Amino acid sequence: MKQHPPSAILLFSCPDTKGIVAEVSHFIFTYGGNILQSHQHNDPETNTFFMRVEWDISDFALPREKIPQAFEPIAIKYRMDWRIEFSDKRTRMAIFVSKQDHCLYDVLLRHKEGEIDADIVMILSNHETTRPIAEYFGVPFYYFPVNRETKEEMEEKEIALLKEHGVDLVVLARYMQILSPRFVGEFRNRIINIHHSFLPAFAGAKPYHQAYERGVKIIGATSHYVTEDLDEGPIIEQDVVRVSHRDTVRDLMQKGKDVEKLVLSRALKLHIDHRILVFRNRTVIFD
Amino acid sequence: MKQHPPSAILLFSCPDTKGIVAEVSHFIFTYGGNILQSHQHNDPETNTFFMRVEWDISDFALPREKIPQAFEPIAIKYRMDWRIEFSDKRTRMAIFVSKQDHCLYDVLLRHKEGEIDADIVMILSNHETTRPIAEYFGVPFYYFPVNRETKEEMEEKEIALLKEHGVDLVVLARYMQILSPRFVGEFRNRIINIHHSFLPAFAGAKPYHQAYERGVKIIGATSHYVTEDLDEGPIIEQDVVRVSHRDTVRDLMQKGKDVEKLVLSRALKLHIDHRILVFRNRTVIFD
Amino acid sequence: MKQHPPSAILLFSCPDTKGIVAEVSHFIFTYGGNILQSHQHNDPETNTFFMRVEWDISDFALPREKIPQAFEPIAIKYRMDWRIEFSDKRTRMAIFVSKQDHCLYDVLLRHKEGEIDADIVMILSNHETTRPIAEYFGVPFYYFPVNRETKEEMEEKEIALLKEHGVDLVVLARYMQILSPRFVGEFRNRIINIHHSFLPAFAGAKPYHQAYERGVKIIGATSHYVTEDLDEGPIIEQDVVRVSHRDTVRDLMQKGKDVEKLVLSRALKLHIDHRILVFRNRTVIFD
Amino acid sequence: MKQHPPSAILLFSCPDTKGIVAEVSHFIFTYGGNILQSHQHNDPETNTFFMRVEWDISDFALPREKIPQAFEPIAIKYRMDWRIEFSDKRTRMAIFVSKQDHCLYDVLLRHKEGEIDADIVMILSNHETTRPIAEYFGVPFYYFPVNRETKEEMEEKEIALLKEHGVDLVVLARYMQILSPRFVGEFRNRIINIHHSFLPAFAGAKPYHQAYERGVKIIGATSHYVTEDLDEGPIIEQDVVRVSHRDTVRDLMQKGKDVEKLVLSRALKLHIDHRILVFRNRTVIFD
Repeated sequence: MKQHPPSAILLFSCPDTKGIVAEVSHFIFTYGGNILQSHQHNDPETNTFFMRVEWDISDFALPREKIPQAFEPIAIKYRMDWRIEFSDKRTRMAIFVSKQDHCLYDVLLRHKEGEIDADIVMILSNHETTRPIAEYFGVPFYYFPVNRETKEEMEEKEIALLKEHGVDLVVLARYMQILSPRFVGEFRNRIINIHHSFLPAFAGAKPYHQAYERGVKIIGATSHYVTEDLDEGPIIEQDVVRVSHRDTVRDLMQKGKDVEKLVLSRALKLHIDHRILVFRNRTVIFD
Repeated sequence: MKQHPPSAILLFSCPDTKGIVAEVSHFIFTYGGNILQSHQHNDPETNTFFMRVEWDISDFALPREKIPQAFEPIAIKYRMDWRIEFSDKRTRMAIFVSKQDHCLYDVLLRHKEGEIDADIVMILSNHETTRPIAEYFGVPFYYFPVNRETKEEMEEKEIALLKEHGVDLVVLARYMQILSPRFVGEFRNRIINIHHSFLPAFAGAKPYHQAYERGVKIIGATSHYVTEDLDEGPIIEQDVVRVSHRDTVRDLMQKGKDVEKLVLSRALKLHIDHRILVFRNRTVIFD
Repeated sequence: MKQHPPSAILLFSCPDTKGIVAEVSHFIFTYGGNILQSHQHNDPETNTFFMRVEWDISDFALPREKIPQAFEPIAIKYRMDWRIEFSDKRTRMAIFVSKQDHCLYDVLLRHKEGEIDADIVMILSNHETTRPIAEYFGVPFYYFPVNRETKEEMEEKEIALLKEHGVDLVVLARYMQILSPRFVGEFRNRIINIHHSFLPAFAGAKPYHQAYERGVKIIGATSHYVTEDLDEGPIIEQDVVRVSHRDTVRDLMQKGKDVEKLVLSRALKLHIDHRILVFRNRTVIFD
Repeated sequence: MKQHPPSAILLFSCPDTKGIVAEVSHFIFTYGGNILQSHQHNDPETNTFFMRVEWDISDFALPREKIPQAFEPIAIKYRMDWRIEFSDKRTRMAIFVSKQDHCLYDVLLRHKEGEIDADIVMILSNHETTRPIAEYFGVPFYYFPVNRETKEEMEEKEIALLKEHGVDLVVLARYMQILSPRFVGEFRNRIINIHHSFLPAFAGAKPYHQAYERGVKIIGATSHYVTEDLDEGPIIEQDVVRVSHRDTVRDLMQKGKDVEKLVLSRALKLHIDHRILVFRNRTVIFD
């Protein structure tokens, strides 16, 4: 679907000082790169500088595999926490799902329409429920019957499978299992969950029931990177919808689904376009 | 500002059964009342029936002071928790404020434009800061220098003053003192607070600082009736606004102000128009 | 999916006068009906009264086929424009679609999850594109290759087909053909279209291109009943989404799709639940 | 209120080519400037490059009055449409108002709280109504009784007055007079109007009446630069609020006021912070 020429995307954070943009843009110019988009942001509280710059590499004088090495001296000089991505290297996603299929359908349909511009490598579930959906969309389906006894073993198999297929993004599209620290550690900042409340309100189980009990007038959803602390990872995106006293728990679930789908898909697009930096359990979003 | 003829407003909840609407509307019809607006709502979970009905009393055959007595047999028959209000009996509000004046200004300006259709009887503060604002709008100002030692004594004086002036709604327009259970008990479901977060997230002190630390992508405000449990009372209205990683705590405070003002003013209008029933720490809103 | 007992729903508008609610609710009570939900609304400008009342008919003393006849004298007395619907008589929908399939998928998935509680009788298209979708969801698909020459003939066949299958709601889920007055007349207030702009802005063709040209900061979608005047029918629901100067026409289309889906589905649910009255080219929504 | 060190802000658009960012950031670095914030944007359709860069000038080796001259060769080389602003040179605003005062109050209160960080030099009105407000806030008030006969003469006097006081931003805060092309030409891209509809819907007079007639489910407001074509200038900001069939024209006006205030204040802040470029009757917003 991409009509654009291939581009390189540099993301970094570093202590703020003079000359960073000049040196980075001079580096790009030296090799004949044309900057397509660039954002800088300075956090005065921590004196940290954040930057995302994307440049056309179709005539770049350096072959792409040599770019990191050539850039490294600048990164070292400014003590950057950095990475370089390429727009034509497609993200390889695995979707984890349990029985609820609305987020799964949503991701698959947005993928089909070219809106989610990544490869969906597999669907992985602890139930057989969504297998026919996987078949309809032509995505390989893997069934891992996780329970308390098998969890550790199953996770090892999952990790092996994901690595074998070069998966670099795990999407928890209403996956009702908690991942172990071991699993999370393997995919640091590469697991995106959708939680069905506006966190930090209603963390944990049954957020719609909690919301109903409390009598809130808005409900929401939160997409975040998964960390070892449940529902505590860096928030990528949130949104809400109005509800009223007339709504039953079932109504909240139904209204919430629309927000879950929107919030998850926006987070996926931001991740896939390499627009997110994680800094101190918060996200910097370059949109 | 009211161009409408005077009307009576009946609000009640009761166990659901047949014939309630028929009997209530027949009562109104018997005395020649014309129904202007009416809402019913049935909560299947608790089998409770809620109703608000408003009728023109300009030709009503019963004088208004006799309406409650005439209606009482129906209320008893259906075991109603009920009240009758009259549209031309204006709510008498007292506004409690500390130093922050944006909500105070907002309420006063909406009052001036006829949007908040009530009497603002007094402004009451634990600081002298807002006295000039009270003077500009011609509202009596009372200064109560509350501190730990004086609190009990001050509250007694406040209660006496409010009763003396027939105040029936206390508005905490960013009032930075916690009211005692004694005070709350005197104005059950008649104290409206604006809290500067989307509760239950960020209850307690410094919610904008908490929101900044957590890195949320939306912030909000909540208006609720005050109960003995801090920030736990029945929620009347909530709303949110988007924020980003670029926003400092000061930015959050600034963006939050707009939501606080909107949410507080909507709650006041609902209360003043007698559109709120409290049921099991939740609100039923007849809008 | 409906767990509720069967109910009758009476909707009407009439000149406002005293006693309407009393007489209607007395009628329901007489035969032992229990009112589940009821809304009244009075439009002072035109002196018109609107009412929707829904009652449980599981123990109703009148068989449902006799209800209209029994109610008629009241309707005549108050000069009502009225209808009675039954919750367990499911709406029979036909979905018209061209090539764009996002609204089609959305309706089918919401139907599958029980959110759209109606029968989807058929999908009808002027292209073959969406046939596989119809097959996946098990809905009969009809292909009508409409062009300028065949239009009149095709429409006659379509009308015949719809009547044969008892279709009582036509959904234009991004159907790129204009229906003739003859067709519209056959399904008065029974054709719902989704237009991809916040009407009346950007009526007619290519609204996203128009929006891009004008440089608006929000785009939207509108669902409305189809009348003989293109994009001029009674509006049922609208919503918007923020856009920026960075968005290309393609971005607007993509962001707009989410709004289109939400707005169309909300309109369908309101129609199916018999919550809409049309009055002077505007809708009264009883939610 | 500004706690920040003084900064320079460069804004430009130019044909896209390689090396622009490198050269601009090198220019800043050469003289020891530290970049605080920077945004670039590339419009592929017109092959245009847009940039806003802000740098700390507290240790800048060039005195500020020499910066434009030193930068000019780069601007010429890349054929830039450019300007340089300084954060500590405060915008000098004049507020034009008729009788409606809600936007006026809103701007004055946001100014008082430091949110609108500019000098409000004067309030100018074709009515005496708002004079007491001007006095309360300590802002000079000028009364210009405009009518058909006096309009040309009055406008000349207004222009002279504005120039005499160094006004560089004219805010039409619900000013019910149409400015002549002569006036508009004097303040190109320096007059901000608030229109009480989501343009292009309901341009011209009485938008709330038009919205009521059409039966829309959302109403909105639009802030835009004033051009010779009424309500056709570049849109800066828009927002909406939901309404229903229950809302009278008066209700729409009341609900609309809140949107008008928000939309106008956001536009003013964007302008004052030099975050807006006008390009082909659209705005590029660097936020």
